[in-house]
Amino acid sequence: MAKVVVIYSGGMDSYTVLHTALAAGHEIVALSFNYGQRHVRELDCAAAVCRDLAITHKIIDITAMNELMTGSSLTDHSIEVAQGHYAEESMKTTVVPNRNMILLSLAIGYAVSIEASAVYYGAHAGDHAIYPDCRPEFVEKMNAVSLIANYQPIAIVAPFLRQSKSDILAAGLALNLDYTNTWTCYVGADRACGKCGACVERLEAFAANHCSDPMLYSGA
Amino acid sequence: MAKVVVIYSGGMDSYTVLHTALAAGHEIVALSFNYGQRHVRELDCAAAVCRDLAITHKIIDITAMNELMTGSSLTDHSIEVAQGHYAEESMKTTVVPNRNMILLSLAIGYAVSIEASAVYYGAHAGDHAIYPDCRPEFVEKMNAVSLIANYQPIAIVAPFLRQSKSDILAAGLALNLDYTNTWTCYVGADRACGKCGACVERLEAFAANHCSDPMLYSGA
Repeated sequence: MAKVVVIYSGGMDSYTVLHTALAAGHEIVALSFNYGQRHVRELDCAAAVCRDLAITHKIIDITAMNELMTGSSLTDHSIEVAQGHYAEESMKTTVVPNRNMILLSLAIGYAVSIEASAVYYGAHAGDHAIYPDCRPEFVEKMNAVSLIANYQPIAIVAPFLRQSKSDILAAGLALNLDYTNTWTCYVGADRACGKCGACVERLEAFAANHCSDPMLYSGA
Repeated sequence: MAKVVVIYSGGMDSYTVLHTALAAGHEIVALSFNYGQRHVRELDCAAAVCRDLAITHKIIDITAMNELMTGSSLTDHSIEVAQGHYAEESMKTTVVPNRNMILLSLAIGYAVSIEASAVYYGAHAGDHAIYPDCRPEFVEKMNAVSLIANYQPIAIVAPFLRQSKSDILAAGLALNLDYTNTWTCYVGADRACGKCGACVERLEAFAANHCSDPMLYSGA
């Protein structure tokens, strides 16, 4: 058992990572970021889950970073969220420059500060095509620098790095997780849109696991 | 000539880095951070210098990160700033966990966003003893991850990485730089204290260059 920081967005991947680390017997401290994302309601999901599990949960407001990084449809509300599959070129509009390095570097600082030994995050193979900072090479090199950047080495752990989103869901279903406790849709309306890349990928994962998504979708 | 982001605190090291990059003919965009440091007046120096040089200058407020990282005398005003030499154990109270990785990751995101090719920062050999994130091994590993974290590779350049603070000053004096345009003291009163680790090191650098510091010191 170790104390670990889990970067927890409130989405299904990090929800599964959180429970995987819990099931392994680790002491969890959850860390969420408000970076001005449209789908800020994922943070409400994260807070509710941590409250129920009695897990320490920090939400840090880093919207100031949007003064530096422009051009992502996730944070710039003047750009429309692309519909369709993640693999498509159009989904590149959802890339926030250097996002995971920024989030990880803050989480590493937090881990040093509270004497945790690792930072967990939910990178997975389904994101490799679009997000360079979800690839194994990125995680390996971030881990290398994280081990020597402070007096205390911090490991970067991405338990689902080489698995698909449907593999993650399968792992979560095996733990009897309730995915109504997660938020995925990038648009951030009252109900999930069912059409953006994030929704499409989520629905595909449930279909691959031969079960239906308990989430309520717009028009459903 | 290339477009580069310079992390510019307003202190003498980054002031010299800024001018070194300018002298090499690069297009400079300067980036400063307000992380709740006591010596926030260094940012006023940075702004004034950039105004005079007609350089684009961003100051980003990242004080929110102090909710995560506690225990540094630079940001926690309840902890006294240690006096004496940098090499002393007591100066470890000035370490902000993972500070340079956090600042670099934001600067890398900014560089991607404005299509710059590199991030410059003022790590130097004098800081190696105290700050793990100023060491050559750290810069090398940050550079490795920065080159692959985004679609566009960003190089991390620390031009004075293996030189001392007096070497930096010598380089600046050779460029006829005016060091009244910089702020060094960690305490952040109206005049520099002359006693904190930062002041002591600065005064030693001027002594090593056989000249006197144009800065006004308390009691002088």
